[in-house]
Amino acid sequence: MLRCTRCGRTYPETFRMGCDCGGTLLVERDYYDFSGSLLPYLDIRRYLSFLPIGGNYLPPAIPAITPTASVQIGSVFALFKLDYLQPSGSFKDRGTWVTVAKLMEEGISEVVLDSSGNAALSMALYSPPAGIKAHVFVSYDTLPEKLSLLQRLGAIVHFVEGDRMAVHERAKEFAEREGLTYVSHWLNPYFIEGTKTAAFEVYEQVGVLDYVLVPTGSGTLFLGLWKGFKELEMMDEIAELPVFVAVQAAGYESLCNRSPVKNSLADGIAIPRPPRLGEMKRALKETNGLCVSVDETETRRALGWLKGAGFLVEPTSAVVLAAMWKLVETGEIAEGSRVLLPLTGSGLKLTEGI
Amino acid sequence: MLRCTRCGRTYPETFRMGCDCGGTLLVERDYYDFSGSLLPYLDIRRYLSFLPIGGNYLPPAIPAITPTASVQIGSVFALFKLDYLQPSGSFKDRGTWVTVAKLMEEGISEVVLDSSGNAALSMALYSPPAGIKAHVFVSYDTLPEKLSLLQRLGAIVHFVEGDRMAVHERAKEFAEREGLTYVSHWLNPYFIEGTKTAAFEVYEQVGVLDYVLVPTGSGTLFLGLWKGFKELEMMDEIAELPVFVAVQAAGYESLCNRSPVKNSLADGIAIPRPPRLGEMKRALKETNGLCVSVDETETRRALGWLKGAGFLVEPTSAVVLAAMWKLVETGEIAEGSRVLLPLTGSGLKLTEGI
Repeated sequence: MLRCTRCGRTYPETFRMGCDCGGTLLVERDYYDFSGSLLPYLDIRRYLSFLPIGGNYLPPAIPAITPTASVQIGSVFALFKLDYLQPSGSFKDRGTWVTVAKLMEEGISEVVLDSSGNAALSMALYSPPAGIKAHVFVSYDTLPEKLSLLQRLGAIVHFVEGDRMAVHERAKEFAEREGLTYVSHWLNPYFIEGTKTAAFEVYEQVGVLDYVLVPTGSGTLFLGLWKGFKELEMMDEIAELPVFVAVQAAGYESLCNRSPVKNSLADGIAIPRPPRLGEMKRALKETNGLCVSVDETETRRALGWLKGAGFLVEPTSAVVLAAMWKLVETGEIAEGSRVLLPLTGSGLKLTEGI
Repeated sequence: MLRCTRCGRTYPETFRMGCDCGGTLLVERDYYDFSGSLLPYLDIRRYLSFLPIGGNYLPPAIPAITPTASVQIGSVFALFKLDYLQPSGSFKDRGTWVTVAKLMEEGISEVVLDSSGNAALSMALYSPPAGIKAHVFVSYDTLPEKLSLLQRLGAIVHFVEGDRMAVHERAKEFAEREGLTYVSHWLNPYFIEGTKTAAFEVYEQVGVLDYVLVPTGSGTLFLGLWKGFKELEMMDEIAELPVFVAVQAAGYESLCNRSPVKNSLADGIAIPRPPRLGEMKRALKETNGLCVSVDETETRRALGWLKGAGFLVEPTSAVVLAAMWKLVETGEIAEGSRVLLPLTGSGLKLTEGI
């Protein structure tokens, strides 16, 4: 079932994007046995028992189990999860894959979403083989490489004048007016079911963690990882959750204090008012977590370090490393800690001839 | 040890690129137990027991176990291996990862290689974290997106006037003149050790196959898959090898008859005289295999189909699907066959800001 994160009301598992009270929804199911429920796949299908889809239709561009690389940086162990190695070049494919499978089960063939780029790219890649028509709403500020790829993939692109929040509003209005299903990853509970699989992988790959640092705009990865670890706790695999750190772009903070200067590099998390803010605050509180804001100079420095280590990622991915450096310097992250740093988007984008 | 594929002479496992008789070398080791030797990783390290490296230094950008997606096309089961989901955007990372680990063990810190693009990109990504200086020789015809990325990654790029064979010759001469280690993937036996892991994954993922179709220029993937399946046969996991089909680009055939018209889309396999030709001929003969040549129109059609299915690959990757269509049409591939189609290179390439 779906449960409202604000009032607790439940609904059946359909494409409902919010509770009547205005709260956001999450899928709620009981799980008991982690290792006994793993399926013999070496890709995301390994975790099908924990996903709210039947498995009759699964999109062919199957998300990978991405490597988690341990690199000692100073006195801490950085665990980089290479989640940019997915079919459309970002972790978003986890959420899209589950969403498209569920849309097929529900017989829905036309949808509306809004995105700063990567979520739209992901849906544009996964919807055609499923016969789904996708209207994607983006801002004129979207990176040209992402826009060009979006158009090559045949998405129906709607441009919006205004910031990321305006794009969100226009998409919602359009869906309502046209009577189409709105599947914004900001609200879509099935999207978070997909991103939670990253937590399962990390747990199988490296075991227990001390800290999880996540690039946090709308919170789809933050809450996915949080939900994945919560389910591992429910299944008695872990005794307590790791400390969650929301890493935000300067000037677009929703959890940290708002900075006066904007970080324009981290386009994937430039989301000043995410609808799942309350859930993120609770997750931070529950894990004694905190929020860190990262500026452009820090982002650039971290991006350079990552490139030198062999991780070819987009700037948004780099903020977690910048945040880790800060937290180690202030002593917030103790020596010997095991710190998860998901790398979310590829640095390879777009070429001719596809 | 290394063994010459022509005269059988053996050498210790150093960076030797050929036998004194002029033959090419392969690593030869005995393996007995496949499943008992798998390590508890969900990435390429799962197969470390089958690799000629000690594991003291492993490059951080660890290659993934890539998904293998089954799609029924007409009457056959196409098994697409998404091997473009690797850190530098191509399957080449498997070979580079093993090569760089081995270079570190040997204490080698400056190397020379030649490439049509992807192998160079891969080495440019993996060499800096290992402190290895890489001279990459490329043709002026290399795709601009690949060149630009190569330069952003800080590779020392040497441009050569002439075709892919001329690039190879200039690189060899330079290495000899400067006393540097030449690690061309065309000759490097450690590279093939890396690519063979794709066969292990496929075997774990989908079991026994009828056909393996491989984009074939220098043969690093063709021979890697062949060697992987040979080792599975040696370990009594499979009773016989699948039928190998070398898929080549029209105008650049080395195994099929040379076409008069060139396929200029498949830049990754435009290699008219690969040094491991004899080995490939033997593998085809041993498996009752064959060669198929694919032209530009066929490549483009297959590329479009793949994009529509959610596989965002570069044109060289598409030739295997075009070849499968032909072989199904002529009845060469029987109904109900299970056909492996490795997708080798990403369609995402190069962006700003990395």
